[in-house]
Amino acid sequence: MPDRILGVLGGMGPLASAEFMRQLTLLTPAARDQDHVPAVLWSDPRVPDRTAARQGTGPDPLLALLRGIRGLEAAGCGAIAIPCNTAHGWIDGMRAATALPILHIVDAAAEALRAAGIPPGPIGVMGTAATLAMGLFQDGLQAGGWEVSVPTEAEMARLVTPGIALVKANRVAESHAPLAEAAQALAARGARAVVLGCTEIPLGIAAGPAQPFPVIDTIQALALASIRWAQGERG
Amino acid sequence: MPDRILGVLGGMGPLASAEFMRQLTLLTPAARDQDHVPAVLWSDPRVPDRTAARQGTGPDPLLALLRGIRGLEAAGCGAIAIPCNTAHGWIDGMRAATALPILHIVDAAAEALRAAGIPPGPIGVMGTAATLAMGLFQDGLQAGGWEVSVPTEAEMARLVTPGIALVKANRVAESHAPLAEAAQALAARGARAVVLGCTEIPLGIAAGPAQPFPVIDTIQALALASIRWAQGERG
Repeated sequence: MPDRILGVLGGMGPLASAEFMRQLTLLTPAARDQDHVPAVLWSDPRVPDRTAARQGTGPDPLLALLRGIRGLEAAGCGAIAIPCNTAHGWIDGMRAATALPILHIVDAAAEALRAAGIPPGPIGVMGTAATLAMGLFQDGLQAGGWEVSVPTEAEMARLVTPGIALVKANRVAESHAPLAEAAQALAARGARAVVLGCTEIPLGIAAGPAQPFPVIDTIQALALASIRWAQGERG
Repeated sequence: MPDRILGVLGGMGPLASAEFMRQLTLLTPAARDQDHVPAVLWSDPRVPDRTAARQGTGPDPLLALLRGIRGLEAAGCGAIAIPCNTAHGWIDGMRAATALPILHIVDAAAEALRAAGIPPGPIGVMGTAATLAMGLFQDGLQAGGWEVSVPTEAEMARLVTPGIALVKANRVAESHAPLAEAAQALAARGARAVVLGCTEIPLGIAAGPAQPFPVIDTIQALALASIRWAQGERG
């Protein structure tokens, strides 16, 4: 029976966190309840908006993130997964404040790219404006030889940013068209795969027809990394 | 911004808990992350099997349930929702051990029956053998004038118990046929609505065509009760 408890720092957004818990369950080889991964989900949607903070128009989320980490530590968790790509912009501050390993979502995405057989070369990454401006994927995927291209500013303003906001407002079906259009634009410019590098985006992309090119779902990638950790791999 | 934190004592099973978090999110009127209900999900699939305990063939789950409640108290939660019907058989022990209100899933189901306009009279209830043997719904719905009928022992053995186990083993698609057949048998015997009184059952029922009679999803009912609590109603 598994005895490592996964801490999930979530609520950013809450629908992505719920989907993370669903994938964590469905991707675990299990024949009964007791085979599944014990986990505590700290779903705090009140964490200040990460993109607004990075753009200097809102309060810093670090204190709220650290409050969640304290809660997960107190609950006995042995590692932390954060199903919000943008929050990883504060990972240095979080790592400085806890001895628990944090399973980095960009490392999980790199592992998913490898598992999907995506060779070094051009790929696309969609994410919040803050995630892309901080270069989280550009930096994290460089070592694997992937060359990251991102949506244009016009595509961000017209498609990606509104698409993410629609998911956070429970308007998932409506988010599909703009998010799919942005992914297709990256593929048309040569991306061999598109990383859905904001955990709202896979929800929108899944709400319509499948894309005719590989997409990397960072919710699923982080769930798989979490299951590997729960099964005994070092975090 | 909401400031009441919901405690979710879950993992029984984990897929039902994830679906509870999804419904909690989708049913909340929200335009952005910060409008959603803060929640902590204690997903502990290691809690001893409730049905085996009630049947005298497995250890008692109360200690594990109380450990979860302690964790949710420590996290600052103001009420507890338990998306597992069978676990409510231990509610006296849980209520004796905490000052937090526990939002009873059978009360939530009664509210859902009222909201669906189901008049007093015959209804069906599906659940684990333990939930039905303990009379959780028979007792809890009596005051509303609903007369509860349950699957036969043969239907339990052939359809309901295996259907629940399939969901817990991540074989949700396969669970639809047996669970739907059991629901239809209750409707054929005169039930005006069928309460899906085990949180695995709505997952299986939703994995195929809709039923031609009202069904009450206890995951959704508990999510709605939780949102009412978060919005300020007394628990």
